[in-house]
Amino acid sequence: MSLGEFELIDHLLRPLAAGFPGALNLRDDAALVDVPPGHQLVVAKDALVAGIHFLPDDPPDLVAGKLLRVNLSDLAAMGADPLAYLTLIARPPDLPETWLEDFVRGLARDQTVFGLHLIGGDTVSTTGPAFFTLTILGLVPSGRALRRDGAGPGQLVCVSGTLGDAALGLRILRGLAAPEEVSMPLIERYRTPRPRIALGKALRGVATAAIDISDGLLADLGHVLEASGVGARIEAAAVPLSEPARGLPGARLGALTGGDDYELLFTIEPEKAPLLSELSETLDVPLTVIGRTREEPGLEVLDHRGRPLVLDRLGWRHF
Amino acid sequence: MSLGEFELIDHLLRPLAAGFPGALNLRDDAALVDVPPGHQLVVAKDALVAGIHFLPDDPPDLVAGKLLRVNLSDLAAMGADPLAYLTLIARPPDLPETWLEDFVRGLARDQTVFGLHLIGGDTVSTTGPAFFTLTILGLVPSGRALRRDGAGPGQLVCVSGTLGDAALGLRILRGLAAPEEVSMPLIERYRTPRPRIALGKALRGVATAAIDISDGLLADLGHVLEASGVGARIEAAAVPLSEPARGLPGARLGALTGGDDYELLFTIEPEKAPLLSELSETLDVPLTVIGRTREEPGLEVLDHRGRPLVLDRLGWRHF
Repeated sequence: MSLGEFELIDHLLRPLAAGFPGALNLRDDAALVDVPPGHQLVVAKDALVAGIHFLPDDPPDLVAGKLLRVNLSDLAAMGADPLAYLTLIARPPDLPETWLEDFVRGLARDQTVFGLHLIGGDTVSTTGPAFFTLTILGLVPSGRALRRDGAGPGQLVCVSGTLGDAALGLRILRGLAAPEEVSMPLIERYRTPRPRIALGKALRGVATAAIDISDGLLADLGHVLEASGVGARIEAAAVPLSEPARGLPGARLGALTGGDDYELLFTIEPEKAPLLSELSETLDVPLTVIGRTREEPGLEVLDHRGRPLVLDRLGWRHF
Repeated sequence: MSLGEFELIDHLLRPLAAGFPGALNLRDDAALVDVPPGHQLVVAKDALVAGIHFLPDDPPDLVAGKLLRVNLSDLAAMGADPLAYLTLIARPPDLPETWLEDFVRGLARDQTVFGLHLIGGDTVSTTGPAFFTLTILGLVPSGRALRRDGAGPGQLVCVSGTLGDAALGLRILRGLAAPEEVSMPLIERYRTPRPRIALGKALRGVATAAIDISDGLLADLGHVLEASGVGARIEAAAVPLSEPARGLPGARLGALTGGDDYELLFTIEPEKAPLLSELSETLDVPLTVIGRTREEPGLEVLDHRGRPLVLDRLGWRHF
């Protein structure tokens, strides 16, 4: 550990651990976490690499926010409550100190928004691009976590929010022309995902399976179907598009295959359908039925005329 | 996620999760961990970057083993029992598949040795050098974790094993000449640390403070003294050297300042001194008293004639 690393931890990261006694002020070899009786710990881990997962000129505070939010989305998909996180920062020699300060400012803001604390933080050097990894800890009542493998045949396939926005936002950042009132909200969807924590918790005991949409609707639905041992048929026209997305080329295709939306995809028994509008209203989040599971394996996507789309041409891999 | 990443997880990592139901076969958004009543979770996180923390021609299975063992050493320093780990693998395009297979073989071997399981594994791409991060989870009876901040004045400063070996091993890998019967064991100390899990557990309720020696004896003792608000005086001649290290130039200096030994440094009340030989015999690990804490802050190191060494010249930073 170089002098600079001690100082980075001292000045920048330590304040993020205040308020969580088990973080031991980031001064010890590890952190201590209490899990209340009747609860399970939920743990996930993700990383962002410069040039791969974020763009060099993305604002550093938003990169930090995205790292935290992507991991929070994993908790949402399990129906868990956020508790704490650990982060590792790898610095190339030319990374400006102000970039890191802005990055940590983004962590500070979003950990307050989502009510969790930093309990382990470390920095290393790298000769390559900067990278950041984050391990998130959450709590869920024992045995009540949402999983991918619980979907049965004949259940409704539902999604939250609108899909394809983040993929369009990324395309706009890479040069796709769009008017500002359209590009702004789409870029925000790409840069600042909104993890559906409240929805995930509300779906405990309601959804039979859940996942967050990070790889794209078809790929992530494929994960659920594979884990649950069922198939599904969905209607492309039912997949919800946002107002800004609607006018752009490739919006519907992006809603099927584009990643990074971090909405929840879940299945419910048909008799629980009335709960959807109730939940949607309480939580102020659109919930849309896009299809139905079935015993026959595989995923069939129907176009607006009811004809099956050829999935391979959408860039989706069969499982 | 590319096709290759799915396959990497499927073929290489998934077998490491077998036997831990909460890992959900690495197929879900997160893992579920049960913490038994009366226990706290202990969490630490570390990383290895190619070219910084390991050498390009280090055997991949030993790099993996070191990553796991370095994190296990953090658990040892807390007096915790290993439970599970998550790992993130960042691959440059030119990393051979066989390298990764060997890496995962190293994880498989060492997770068996230390009795823990992989519960979260992911891979990302990078345009820079390969890197690997690991988050380790352990368990400790509530309130019984060893910490850095418990040392009081007038206590014995003790270390396990021998010090400076890993630093000499690294110097030999970088070109220092040494006969093979000397170089082999020293290089092994550098490449394959032995986390002192059993000792850490035995020191619960015995040691007043503990840390693992990763940054070097003086730096890590400095961390304990700073956290505990005491000072110490140690004798350089008392610091235990291994037989292979003894004949090499700079061995004693390396024992004071060289990192990577992953022995435990701990403090105990003087009346518990008789326990040391008992523990040493039971666990078959040398335990050596190298000095004593005191109220006066700062760290004083005496040479073999009892004269204070000038610490700044040893590359050690005052706190």
